[in-house]
Amino acid sequence: MLVQTYVDMLSAKSVIRNLSEYAVARGKEIGYDNVFDYTLGNPSVPVPDAVNQTMIELLSTKSSMELHGYSQSLGIPEVRVKVAASLNRRFGMNYTMDHIFMTSGAAGAIAHALRLVTVPGDEVLTFAPFFPEYNPYVNLTGAVLKVVPADVKSFQINFEAFESMINEKTMAVMVNTPNNPSGICYSTNTIEKLSNILTEKSKQYGHVIYLISDEPYREIVFEGVDAPYVSKFYDHTISCYSFSKSLSLPGERIGYVAINPKCEGADKMAVMCGQISRGIGHNCPASLIQLAVAENLDLTADMSVYERNMNILYDELTDLGFECVKPGGTFYIFPKALEDDAIAFCEKAKRYDFIGVPSDSFGCPGHFRLAYCISTEKVERSLEALRRFVREMY
Amino acid sequence: MLVQTYVDMLSAKSVIRNLSEYAVARGKEIGYDNVFDYTLGNPSVPVPDAVNQTMIELLSTKSSMELHGYSQSLGIPEVRVKVAASLNRRFGMNYTMDHIFMTSGAAGAIAHALRLVTVPGDEVLTFAPFFPEYNPYVNLTGAVLKVVPADVKSFQINFEAFESMINEKTMAVMVNTPNNPSGICYSTNTIEKLSNILTEKSKQYGHVIYLISDEPYREIVFEGVDAPYVSKFYDHTISCYSFSKSLSLPGERIGYVAINPKCEGADKMAVMCGQISRGIGHNCPASLIQLAVAENLDLTADMSVYERNMNILYDELTDLGFECVKPGGTFYIFPKALEDDAIAFCEKAKRYDFIGVPSDSFGCPGHFRLAYCISTEKVERSLEALRRFVREMY
Repeated sequence: MLVQTYVDMLSAKSVIRNLSEYAVARGKEIGYDNVFDYTLGNPSVPVPDAVNQTMIELLSTKSSMELHGYSQSLGIPEVRVKVAASLNRRFGMNYTMDHIFMTSGAAGAIAHALRLVTVPGDEVLTFAPFFPEYNPYVNLTGAVLKVVPADVKSFQINFEAFESMINEKTMAVMVNTPNNPSGICYSTNTIEKLSNILTEKSKQYGHVIYLISDEPYREIVFEGVDAPYVSKFYDHTISCYSFSKSLSLPGERIGYVAINPKCEGADKMAVMCGQISRGIGHNCPASLIQLAVAENLDLTADMSVYERNMNILYDELTDLGFECVKPGGTFYIFPKALEDDAIAFCEKAKRYDFIGVPSDSFGCPGHFRLAYCISTEKVERSLEALRRFVREMY
Repeated sequence: MLVQTYVDMLSAKSVIRNLSEYAVARGKEIGYDNVFDYTLGNPSVPVPDAVNQTMIELLSTKSSMELHGYSQSLGIPEVRVKVAASLNRRFGMNYTMDHIFMTSGAAGAIAHALRLVTVPGDEVLTFAPFFPEYNPYVNLTGAVLKVVPADVKSFQINFEAFESMINEKTMAVMVNTPNNPSGICYSTNTIEKLSNILTEKSKQYGHVIYLISDEPYREIVFEGVDAPYVSKFYDHTISCYSFSKSLSLPGERIGYVAINPKCEGADKMAVMCGQISRGIGHNCPASLIQLAVAENLDLTADMSVYERNMNILYDELTDLGFECVKPGGTFYIFPKALEDDAIAFCEKAKRYDFIGVPSDSFGCPGHFRLAYCISTEKVERSLEALRRFVREMY
């Protein structure tokens, strides 16, 4: 018999995926250039040339056994050393290779982090608005994801709601800053306050509450924005990183877990990840990709387009009367819709070939997400459609 | 709190790993050339040049977005089409892309296959001798692995023991042919008999018993050996493949699940794998590697060295009086030790710098495994050490 859990999931099709498929289909009718497709968070800038060149160099010079042989299940040792050094240099941390576990992207990192510190029945808290994949990430481990309602004024943390929801079954809290879908970076003040509550509640409940910090957008922070390194503020932090966005190579599936050296159990956690891998069939990201990113750790793709696009959209949206918190990073913006029903709002926008994603699946109704990882030229052309839509419909 | 399951696993160090580390350490004392290290199943022949050339070509010509962008979670569609076509051409099957799910190696494939058809508490049967990683692969899903004792005369299947162990909780049977550690290929006769029993028992228990066929050694079959394609003989077969051995790139983590089109639920299983991935953080193998193997599906590394090494070892072992079933493929041989305690036997062999792995963890005591994926020159030099060991110790 097929396992019913997964059969049941087949009928719940992703809203984002549906809209993205609609945009592509519509593009076949009127030309994709004329569809203002803000649905998908797929990096639009090329991988830095240096990364491709590193791979070509490796393929041309390294021996087959050295390059394509089994890597250790925690990742290639020299790669882990370099990742630790880069984090220490950039964020003033004290990681060693023993705190780094290489993964197939942030999804792989989170899969390990959750299994390190939760068992079925435990609760994991996260904050709306949130990346909807957290639902299967957490719930399919047997733990239960609980979502703290948003602070819609700032998209920082709604601490009142958080304190009412945290309880003795809470084993981990997940944060995502810079945030998908709001584009907001949690401020130093927010993270300090979060850290204080976690410390106090850990003491109260007699067990550490771990902070799982999902950071695929860490390198996409706009001019002058306060976007601190989360792990600096709370010892029991497990950082989950992906190079997908910073190096524009989401298909290559490469990231890591970085365990704060002061975390309870820090000395065991990377090797435990190696054991977790045996159960979930992870067994390392590809050697070639590990070696290639290790040579380019301080590099990012040219991501200036994202800030440029954000400013154009933010100015236009506020001019048109949208309530909108200005993003501090990522390539998302999350304005309030012009009616309570964001699904109806986005349906109407579709008539103008302006395709955004209604916010319901992000745990924060009444808003919509625009993923502006598209060309600036297209963003500019989209404004007229947006204006017409607002003028004619509201 | 750290999750105890994984903490407990840290103390149980792999026998193979320990012996391999011993061999490397000993190599530092006397020169690794003088250590006859038969511990690890790490392919010793280089990746075919064409594979590296394909990657260089892709890196030099494809657009960044096309090459490094997100692939669909089931794998890159054109890759799945090509994998299906290659299997159909070589094994007379009728796969379409809808039956193919790309994975990070065989471990990733098995992780999905198990979750398709078992829930916690279900039983999975496999046959000794067996790859010890099946223990964490199965048991960490919550299902329970049961091992059918070996038929030590042939290392085919001990059907009497199998029929006594199969029961209404058996949801899947795992086979590994060509087999690690025995090197044996299940014959047409064995697979037909297995298929008949599974069909009969499925009917008796009122649910399909799936056959999970783990086939990383499928392309390493020696001259004249009967090594049929398992899925041809039983409709409810999920084949799990890895390119690690056939293309000598175990570090690149690439393989697939191939679902027999007549399998119960065949139309749903690949998309269900996509859902399973969300829970275990899989999300596809690396795009570059997917595209590279798709261009080289009918190619293998030059694996003639394995058969040459096998013949040399088999002749010498039988000359020395070892009971030994002649391998039909892989790069393993699995002779009976010269005393009942294989661990003691292998300890004694270490004094001659002849390092094999005792069979206890393979579920078949009293034997030892030699992984002869090393140079023929070294195999030949090892014979004198083997002879001295046997002469002086037994």
